[in-house]
Amino acid sequence: MELHGVGVGRSAAIGPILRMPEPLPQPEAAQHNGNAEAELATVKVALGEVAADLTARGAQAGGDAKDVLEAAALMAQDPSLIDDVTARINAGTTGERAVFEAFAAFQDMLTAMGGYMAERATDLGDVSQRIIANLRGVAAPGIPTSDVPFILVASDLAPADTALLDLERVLALITRDGGPTSHTAILARSKSIPAVVGVTGALDLADGTIVVADAATGVVTVDPTAEQRAEVEAAIARRLEVAAAPLTNGVLADGTLVPLLANLGSPKEAANAVELGAEGVGLFRTEFLFLDSKTAPTVEEQEKQYTELLAAFPGKKVVVRALDAGADKPLSFLNAAKEENPALGLRGLRALRASEQILRDQLTALVNAQNATEADLWVMAPMVADAPEAEYFVALGKELGLKTVGAMAEIPSLALVADQVAEVSDFVSIGTNDLTQYTMAADRMLGSVASYQDPWHPAVLRLIKMLGDAGAAAGKPVGVCGEAAADPLLAVVLVGLGATTLSMTPAALVDVRAELAGVTLDEARAKAAAALGGRSADEARAAASAVVAAGAQA
Amino acid sequence: MELHGVGVGRSAAIGPILRMPEPLPQPEAAQHNGNAEAELATVKVALGEVAADLTARGAQAGGDAKDVLEAAALMAQDPSLIDDVTARINAGTTGERAVFEAFAAFQDMLTAMGGYMAERATDLGDVSQRIIANLRGVAAPGIPTSDVPFILVASDLAPADTALLDLERVLALITRDGGPTSHTAILARSKSIPAVVGVTGALDLADGTIVVADAATGVVTVDPTAEQRAEVEAAIARRLEVAAAPLTNGVLADGTLVPLLANLGSPKEAANAVELGAEGVGLFRTEFLFLDSKTAPTVEEQEKQYTELLAAFPGKKVVVRALDAGADKPLSFLNAAKEENPALGLRGLRALRASEQILRDQLTALVNAQNATEADLWVMAPMVADAPEAEYFVALGKELGLKTVGAMAEIPSLALVADQVAEVSDFVSIGTNDLTQYTMAADRMLGSVASYQDPWHPAVLRLIKMLGDAGAAAGKPVGVCGEAAADPLLAVVLVGLGATTLSMTPAALVDVRAELAGVTLDEARAKAAAALGGRSADEARAAASAVVAAGAQA
Repeated sequence: MELHGVGVGRSAAIGPILRMPEPLPQPEAAQHNGNAEAELATVKVALGEVAADLTARGAQAGGDAKDVLEAAALMAQDPSLIDDVTARINAGTTGERAVFEAFAAFQDMLTAMGGYMAERATDLGDVSQRIIANLRGVAAPGIPTSDVPFILVASDLAPADTALLDLERVLALITRDGGPTSHTAILARSKSIPAVVGVTGALDLADGTIVVADAATGVVTVDPTAEQRAEVEAAIARRLEVAAAPLTNGVLADGTLVPLLANLGSPKEAANAVELGAEGVGLFRTEFLFLDSKTAPTVEEQEKQYTELLAAFPGKKVVVRALDAGADKPLSFLNAAKEENPALGLRGLRALRASEQILRDQLTALVNAQNATEADLWVMAPMVADAPEAEYFVALGKELGLKTVGAMAEIPSLALVADQVAEVSDFVSIGTNDLTQYTMAADRMLGSVASYQDPWHPAVLRLIKMLGDAGAAAGKPVGVCGEAAADPLLAVVLVGLGATTLSMTPAALVDVRAELAGVTLDEARAKAAAALGGRSADEARAAASAVVAAGAQA
Repeated sequence: MELHGVGVGRSAAIGPILRMPEPLPQPEAAQHNGNAEAELATVKVALGEVAADLTARGAQAGGDAKDVLEAAALMAQDPSLIDDVTARINAGTTGERAVFEAFAAFQDMLTAMGGYMAERATDLGDVSQRIIANLRGVAAPGIPTSDVPFILVASDLAPADTALLDLERVLALITRDGGPTSHTAILARSKSIPAVVGVTGALDLADGTIVVADAATGVVTVDPTAEQRAEVEAAIARRLEVAAAPLTNGVLADGTLVPLLANLGSPKEAANAVELGAEGVGLFRTEFLFLDSKTAPTVEEQEKQYTELLAAFPGKKVVVRALDAGADKPLSFLNAAKEENPALGLRGLRALRASEQILRDQLTALVNAQNATEADLWVMAPMVADAPEAEYFVALGKELGLKTVGAMAEIPSLALVADQVAEVSDFVSIGTNDLTQYTMAADRMLGSVASYQDPWHPAVLRLIKMLGDAGAAAGKPVGVCGEAAADPLLAVVLVGLGATTLSMTPAALVDVRAELAGVTLDEARAKAAAALGGRSADEARAAASAVVAAGAQA
């Protein structure tokens, strides 16, 4: 039997599946036996045990997961939450129900606050489930653990789930929901784990069933034959060989250079990117400098971070994006008003223009870092609508001393007037996630319209072609730094549409590098032309696949 | 002195200005003198007087304004609001402050509910201001009244303000904020009042200053010279002549027919549209049938309304849009989940597909009405993303017995694959408001990004050209039914881009008809080509204006 979904990555895996447990049923609204003190004591033990367990898991996991899990442990010991639970138990409610109600009330508050705080609401729900499971003496829902490697099957994965993933044991991810830019897909790319998302019927598979998950085709084969097993094992071996090959720069089969760059969110990630063969940085997000502060950071604080980043890439290109605040990342000092549709609100360059001193400070810090290091610094503005806006940003950047200044292409209008933008901007870099969201008018964070969030849609590809054509006509570089560049087949199509560099999560570099090496520029263009004629994302993907490149691997 | 903004319409006016008063200062949080009973009695008198005043104004205004004002009168007498005010006064708060706080709390609740309820929050604020003004013995903020005709100057106009406008006395509207699709602009078009919106410096004009407001040029001339007065008075006389001319069908100077249709929201509006020379209906919105119900209306209920509409247009084209629920018009039975960005959510055709029986019922009712009348019924789906979606809707409509079935072009993706859509759809109709919103990634209801909501933007015009070209190549009609069609100069450009029909608020027909009569198709195309080369909406508008048509009036 075969199940079909959208593949993420180019690799495949074979193994037994383990399903993510469904959430616990909600505790009934019931009264305890009258001994509030005993009820509270039991709950306090559970809180302590869950906190200790989360801390231990964090210590074992290390890295980002450690932070996520330690934050969760703190939630289980939060004094105001414990006060609320205590008050509910004193009023007669059972411990389970009191925990459920108190956490739910806090979750609602966080959800109402929106943005970053709302995302934390999911983590709080996870902690609540763990405490209730402890009280019931059942296994906590969440990532299953196993002594043998397995393929994880879930409806979808939340950040709190994946922080707990023991990646050493997870061979592949299969989810019923989610699209190519879901959290699951982003995780799979960043960890180089094959994934197939949007697989109808995935949750009907029984634990232990052997399946082949093939990210390259998006097919999940249930109970594979011996022949199918041998085929996928050979493919896995070939891929390991490719991954073990010496690092080269991005280059097509005909020698055309396509520099492969890294998307980074902090200077700390630079070393890993260099190790995985990044030829520079194609997108450095600067939000991390701003998110935790009540006010904008000073020029000096920013300069220190930018200098640390640039120092890691002497002689190489580093593209920094100016602060992209707003939408799901509002900042109190920049985004004042509550917006009905924050994704269509005062965000990106619009918000920066409205608070120009913040922008001037950031650009000044970048100029200082540029002048203090050997890196080739490029700076771009987020959410640029048209040529006059690009012109404004380029003029300001040059006035302050930047050498290379450009615009992100994420709003459809910018691509539609790409010819005008190419005249005034030193370069453009395509953010495929937002560009897809706006072109399809479908929120990329919203599950019910997730199927629209596919950069393979011919409408999106046609906008990218306009940008590529305009860049070629004006002799200006056109990069891609959205999730699309990390999809190896799509990376080839992007080059065929005119992308001159590709930037991605560092773990995706190996697959994209291998895929590009198998095609000539003409072949990439033929694949792109085929994709443009598709009537849907699926048709475009299939059409590009069907164009066989002479140098392609079997 | 001249002030500059964006003109709405083609007419002009001259007269003294009156400014809309600024809101009252917020009452201080203070305690009354201890006599809660006396304080409450005073407030109750004020509530009664304000309710009576609003009811009287409603009776005088009639029509839609009557409903708005009567609803406001009910708010001033709402028992839960009065309970809340009473409780606050009993707790020692002054009457003014108690009214302010109680109304503000209700406003917050409504705002949090979003959509339609959130819009009512503004009305509640207006009622609160009237009560506080009554308590203070000052004039209520809001529309000024005058015995002589005047030009109203405001920061912006809300629906609650304009319901109170004595239109007989308002010569023109000038606002500091707002764009060409703001409420002010829509009102101006629907009432055929000249308006200039987005006028910096407008609020600095003193009451009584004589100005010329010229909607055709977007210029406000302060203290005009005798020569300038004579000029505008001659122009006004010419326009009255045009308006008084016998009604003709829409036709260009070279005889090219461009049928001029009406946008309607209820069958009751049909008679007025016919009187103003509508050659049919280009957009019939069906939301009015659904908005007040907890469940979808039955096939029979819908059929009755559609039959009433179609019977008013025997032998003429009537384009009905299937239910466009979601975004700012959520329906409990169709749009379940709260969405972070409802404009990018499960709306339009997406929501209908998810509840297909509602769609089937609506189409069945339309088929029955089609078969019972002589009108030429066309039916279109809102928020169609691409050819497969258009194909789905067309197939379903034909299966049920509709003769002509098409798609709205409001999502950028649809325009980008217009060639594919033209193959499967009988026609397309361009909704310029949403198309602009998504193309520019700027919420059309949000003040801080209002300047982006301009259908003159070359990116939007280029999408319209793709749709026009694809329609011409496939021999399929391409209509425009967004606000853009009601702007006479833009109407000419739309025809030049390939629009074969234009649909608008009936009051706009006279100006558009006159403007079209002055240009040939070649001239319209020349204006369109000039507009496409602009780098901004303003440049596009200016470029189109600068192309002089041989038959144009001075």
